[in-house]
Amino acid sequence: MNRWFGGIEAGGTKFICLVGAGPNTIVEEIRIPTTTPVETIGRALKFFEPYARRGELAAVGIASFGPVDLNPSSSTYGCITTTPKPGWAGVDLRGQIHRALHLPVAFDTDVNAAAFGEHTWNPENHSLESLVYMTVGTGIGVGVIANGRPLHGLLHSEAGHMAVPHDINRDPFPGICPYHGDCLEGLACGPALARRWGCPAEALPAGHPAWELEGEYLAFGLANLVYTISPQRIVLGGGVAQHPDLHEIVRRQVQRILNGYLRSPLLLEKMDQYLVPPALGSRSGVLGAIAMARQVAERGG
Amino acid sequence: MNRWFGGIEAGGTKFICLVGAGPNTIVEEIRIPTTTPVETIGRALKFFEPYARRGELAAVGIASFGPVDLNPSSSTYGCITTTPKPGWAGVDLRGQIHRALHLPVAFDTDVNAAAFGEHTWNPENHSLESLVYMTVGTGIGVGVIANGRPLHGLLHSEAGHMAVPHDINRDPFPGICPYHGDCLEGLACGPALARRWGCPAEALPAGHPAWELEGEYLAFGLANLVYTISPQRIVLGGGVAQHPDLHEIVRRQVQRILNGYLRSPLLLEKMDQYLVPPALGSRSGVLGAIAMARQVAERGG
Repeated sequence: MNRWFGGIEAGGTKFICLVGAGPNTIVEEIRIPTTTPVETIGRALKFFEPYARRGELAAVGIASFGPVDLNPSSSTYGCITTTPKPGWAGVDLRGQIHRALHLPVAFDTDVNAAAFGEHTWNPENHSLESLVYMTVGTGIGVGVIANGRPLHGLLHSEAGHMAVPHDINRDPFPGICPYHGDCLEGLACGPALARRWGCPAEALPAGHPAWELEGEYLAFGLANLVYTISPQRIVLGGGVAQHPDLHEIVRRQVQRILNGYLRSPLLLEKMDQYLVPPALGSRSGVLGAIAMARQVAERGG
Repeated sequence: MNRWFGGIEAGGTKFICLVGAGPNTIVEEIRIPTTTPVETIGRALKFFEPYARRGELAAVGIASFGPVDLNPSSSTYGCITTTPKPGWAGVDLRGQIHRALHLPVAFDTDVNAAAFGEHTWNPENHSLESLVYMTVGTGIGVGVIANGRPLHGLLHSEAGHMAVPHDINRDPFPGICPYHGDCLEGLACGPALARRWGCPAEALPAGHPAWELEGEYLAFGLANLVYTISPQRIVLGGGVAQHPDLHEIVRRQVQRILNGYLRSPLLLEKMDQYLVPPALGSRSGVLGAIAMARQVAERGG
C-alpha cells in the first residue's frame, strides 16, 4: 500500500507519466502526445487512476513546462501562466491532478525537477549543496538546486533568456527569441541552430563550424551561471547536447572564458567531472517528479 | 554578559569593526586603514580584546574581501586566497581572530554578509527567500541569499565577472578586468568609469552620457541575475551607485532588457520596490557580520 509515487513530466510535445519509486523501481511508464489540455490531462489521469484507486500511490509530482506559478500562496499556484502554446495558458495543471486523484501533489518546473532528479538519484550529486541543470533543445531551460533545495525566488530561473556577448560582425544571425532576439536561447536553442545553418541540428555533422559557435554561446551562459550561482556541478542535457563533441567543446570554452579566475581544481583541471551529461538520460525530469512526490509524501502533504 | 557581538568588515582599503547587537544597538565602531595583515588585524584585535576579556562578546562575524575559502572542511577555510593585494594572499583571517579572542567566528564574503545584513535587519526583507546585493565601487561584487541562506556552492558568487553584451562599435572601451577585459566589472566598476571618461566617477555630472551607459551595463548584469537567480529583491549599493540618477536609469534599463518576458508585477510596475538602495547605507557589510555572529552564537559555535 502507498508504496509507489506518480511522476509526470509535462512537456510541450509530450507528457511522460511514470509509476514507481526511483530509477531502479519503475512499475509502468507511458508517453502521451501533448494535444489539448482536456485530452492530455485526461489520458494522464486514466493512467494513474487504477493505481490511486487501489491505494498504491502516496503522492504525485509534476515537472511542468512553463512559465508556471510556483508560489503556494498565490491564487494561480500550480498553473501554467503565459505559455504561447494554444489552450494551455492558465491551465490549473496541479489542481486538476490533485482533485481527480485525491493525493498530495508536488509541483515545479520541468528543469527544476530535472535538477532535483539528478541531485536525488545520482549518488555522486546527492551531498552537493548546489547543482545546475541546463537543457538545450527546443528552448534552453535551467533548473537550480541552491542550498540543497530547488530555487524558486520571485518566479523561477529563466536563465535560458540571459544576455550573452554576441559579435554580430562574426555571427550576423539576429537570434530567434520573440522577446529578446539574441539572448542565449535566441542564439543557441535547437530551432536557432536550424534557422542559422538551414538544416536541423541533428543533421549538422561533427566538425561543422556550427558546433564550435554553439559551444561558445552555451559556454558564455554556463560561465555566467558559474559566476552567479557557483554550482558544485553542472548537468548539461537535452537533444542538442547529445551531439558527441558538444560537451568537450563547451568544457574547453568555459575554461577559456573563465580564464583561470576561479581557483577551483574542478574548473581548472577536472572539467569532465564538473560539466557532465545527465545520469538519468532523458528521464531526469520525470524521475525528479518522483523524488518530489516522495518528499511531499514524507512531509505529510 | 555575552550580550554583544563583534562584526568586522574586512575591506581592501579599510576594516570596519563594530561591537553591538544590530543597527539600533551599536556600542562602539572604528575604522582602520588596511595596511599589512599584521598591523591591520592587530589593531582590530586590540579593539575587540577588552570586550572579549570582560566576557561581553558571544561571537564574531567577519565579512571579508576576497576571494576567500568558505568551505568549512577545507584546510584553508577562512583564508583569503588569491587576492592581488600585497601580503594578503593566504592570510588566515578567520583563524587569527578565532585563536586570539577564543570566540566562535562566522566567516563569509563582504557581499554575502551585506546581503545577509540587508535581509536580516530590514523588516521588509526578512521574510524573503531570496535577495541579491550588488555593490558597484572599486569592483563589482554580488552577494546572494537563496532559499533563505547565503549562497556558497563551489566557491561563492563572483557575478561581477559575468559576461555581458558589449557593442564595441558604440563603446570601443576595451574594459579593465585583468582576467576578462570587458566583463561587467571590467566595463562598469568605478575605475572603469574613470578610465573611460578621464575623470573620477564622482566628478561626472548628472546628465553626462556616462550614466546612461553605466546604467545599461549594470542592467544587463542585473537582468542576468533576475534570469538566473530570480531574487525577490535586489539591493544596489556601493559608491558609484550613490549617483542620484543611477537607480532610476538602471530600473528603466532592466525593464527594457527583460522586455515584459517575466510577468511579475514587481518587475512590470513596481521596480522602485524591487531594486532598492541599501537600507543600512554603508553598514550593510558590518551589520551583516553582526547578524552572522548572532547566528553562530545561537547555534552554539
